[in-house]
Amino acid sequence: MSIITLLTDFGTADSYVAEMKAVLLSEVPGIVLIDVTHDIPSGNVLAAQYVLSRVWRRFPLGTVHLAVVDPGVGTVRRALAGEIAGHQFVAPDNGLLSGLPATTRFVALPIPALASPTFHGRDVFAPIAALLATGGSLESLGAPITDPVRSPLPVPHVEPGRVTGEVIYVDHFGNLISNVAGVGAPAGSVTVAGVDVGPLRRSFGEVATGELIAYVGSAGTVEIAQRDGSAASRLGAGVGADVRVGAR
Amino acid sequence: MSIITLLTDFGTADSYVAEMKAVLLSEVPGIVLIDVTHDIPSGNVLAAQYVLSRVWRRFPLGTVHLAVVDPGVGTVRRALAGEIAGHQFVAPDNGLLSGLPATTRFVALPIPALASPTFHGRDVFAPIAALLATGGSLESLGAPITDPVRSPLPVPHVEPGRVTGEVIYVDHFGNLISNVAGVGAPAGSVTVAGVDVGPLRRSFGEVATGELIAYVGSAGTVEIAQRDGSAASRLGAGVGADVRVGAR
Amino acid sequence: MSIITLLTDFGTADSYVAEMKAVLLSEVPGIVLIDVTHDIPSGNVLAAQYVLSRVWRRFPLGTVHLAVVDPGVGTVRRALAGEIAGHQFVAPDNGLLSGLPATTRFVALPIPALASPTFHGRDVFAPIAALLATGGSLESLGAPITDPVRSPLPVPHVEPGRVTGEVIYVDHFGNLISNVAGVGAPAGSVTVAGVDVGPLRRSFGEVATGELIAYVGSAGTVEIAQRDGSAASRLGAGVGADVRVGAR
Repeated sequence: MSIITLLTDFGTADSYVAEMKAVLLSEVPGIVLIDVTHDIPSGNVLAAQYVLSRVWRRFPLGTVHLAVVDPGVGTVRRALAGEIAGHQFVAPDNGLLSGLPATTRFVALPIPALASPTFHGRDVFAPIAALLATGGSLESLGAPITDPVRSPLPVPHVEPGRVTGEVIYVDHFGNLISNVAGVGAPAGSVTVAGVDVGPLRRSFGEVATGELIAYVGSAGTVEIAQRDGSAASRLGAGVGADVRVGAR
Repeated sequence: MSIITLLTDFGTADSYVAEMKAVLLSEVPGIVLIDVTHDIPSGNVLAAQYVLSRVWRRFPLGTVHLAVVDPGVGTVRRALAGEIAGHQFVAPDNGLLSGLPATTRFVALPIPALASPTFHGRDVFAPIAALLATGGSLESLGAPITDPVRSPLPVPHVEPGRVTGEVIYVDHFGNLISNVAGVGAPAGSVTVAGVDVGPLRRSFGEVATGELIAYVGSAGTVEIAQRDGSAASRLGAGVGADVRVGAR
Repeated sequence: MSIITLLTDFGTADSYVAEMKAVLLSEVPGIVLIDVTHDIPSGNVLAAQYVLSRVWRRFPLGTVHLAVVDPGVGTVRRALAGEIAGHQFVAPDNGLLSGLPATTRFVALPIPALASPTFHGRDVFAPIAALLATGGSLESLGAPITDPVRSPLPVPHVEPGRVTGEVIYVDHFGNLISNVAGVGAPAGSVTVAGVDVGPLRRSFGEVATGELIAYVGSAGTVEIAQRDGSAASRLGAGVGADVRVGAR
């Protein structure tokens, strides 16, 4: 019982996701298809990288992760397959896989002459994901490469008693997710976009409805939320906003 | 072939639903996962209760229903598992399961110390759903309780020849779904938010495009729609709006 | 391992899709359910026809396609099942299946007396799809008919050196998809809604970010996009907009 996950910016209104699934189901009878999301903002490779980095390790060993946020489709950008820790990945070479460990093995995939130059998801990446899901080896798919495009998420600046990071993702609830690790975060206030939201708390219940709250979120980093509301709207803040934890 | 259904307010843009599914697939190889919806309005426990109440009995016996609309996550609110009529349920103790029969058996679930205080869906409810789907007994999961939070949907006021209820749900089409039962509804006009929309009809074809129509909907209660349009927009009406059927 | 695909305009916020899936899973244990989309604009039969026509042949032989965009539900419009090329279809008789080959065999389905007059998707079409997925023959389901409603997508006007077509679908990215075939398209400029967007190119990389580009899309017809943006917004153009390829 093999699993392929799908992560794209294709939305769910058109035929695109189903066209990819039809390829996968035709080539791997019985494959289990799990949507991570198809609502990555159009072309937002960093958001795709963040979402993928949160989920892949939680899936069973042997899962193939098919991730297509691909503004450069049809250009000279390479197509990649990768493997690490019992998981396999297929994605364009545009930084989407930058969150994987440095020891990930990568190969560059050939682009079939008949592939649609605007839909490699269906004609390049899905067939390769199918091959991997049926036991094909990474090395059989293309030539190894050691220089995948790397555009890692920003890392915070750590000083004694203070960490300065930034918002790296805004979720559906309007929660602002930062890159500041919860483990080892210094004591003191959290400020986001210049607004002091108090010390790190444990759960939403510690503040009143409508108040801002900082806490260590479910990915292990500092988040800022508005209880029963949207911190992003309340603060007019988004990806890139300053997040400071600790001494002023 | 076991089934777990998922019903949340997490949206489909983030990693949250996939994180839950990864837990379920890791713990129950071969499990079938069915999304009921992830688009419950944020924190709207009554909408979640309504949607769950429409679907659960239609699934095969043995289905586990995982429902997480949980504005109180991380507070002292309890976590529940329940069982009735061959179906099992996992949800926060906030009224979400109020639509289940009074004979439903409930247990309170322990909260693991390492559970993220903001994501019990992944760290508390999904693992319990996995245990139930693999044959774990309700009683093995926690201590029985008899006082789950009950916040039932409103019930209509029935008089001879007249029923006064209200809109309890507005769907994607803008149809206004009331709590007035279709079976036994009195003859006479239907009024919603003070607007007379005529007698109960059988199907949309009985009025012209753009006209309002009352009918017994697919859940067995009186609904008001605009043919080929949105009654909610047309009337500026939503949940809580008055619905009267019968004599003035 | 049988597959049923689902294509509706029900959205994903309500219980409707899950009610259909519950019927299918109850009647066909082990069935694989694949969402094509539930975000067809409300009542837009032509959009449903276009999306279905792109995907059905890509699924494995034996797949049943359940398509419910049904503004005439409960009226005298017939309910259909169809079969062609190893695929089976269930849909209202409103033109949704007009894209299937002329040799498709159709039967008219009986409407059960107890079917909700507003939800044939659950009470008429899903049970029939379940019967087909379990090996029921088309002919066992109803009387053959040869006059299904046909409302085909518009066809372009072809002259020597010039083709005049129109936009037949706008996708999630705002790409304008026309009915002008890419194979055999004449040389020369592409104009959409009176705006010259230059000759057909191969891939987005051939123009700068923010520029309009015409190319042969992944369904084989001419499309107009804005690189890293929405051509539909940029041009204020949608379905029905003029698309000309070739000599002025």
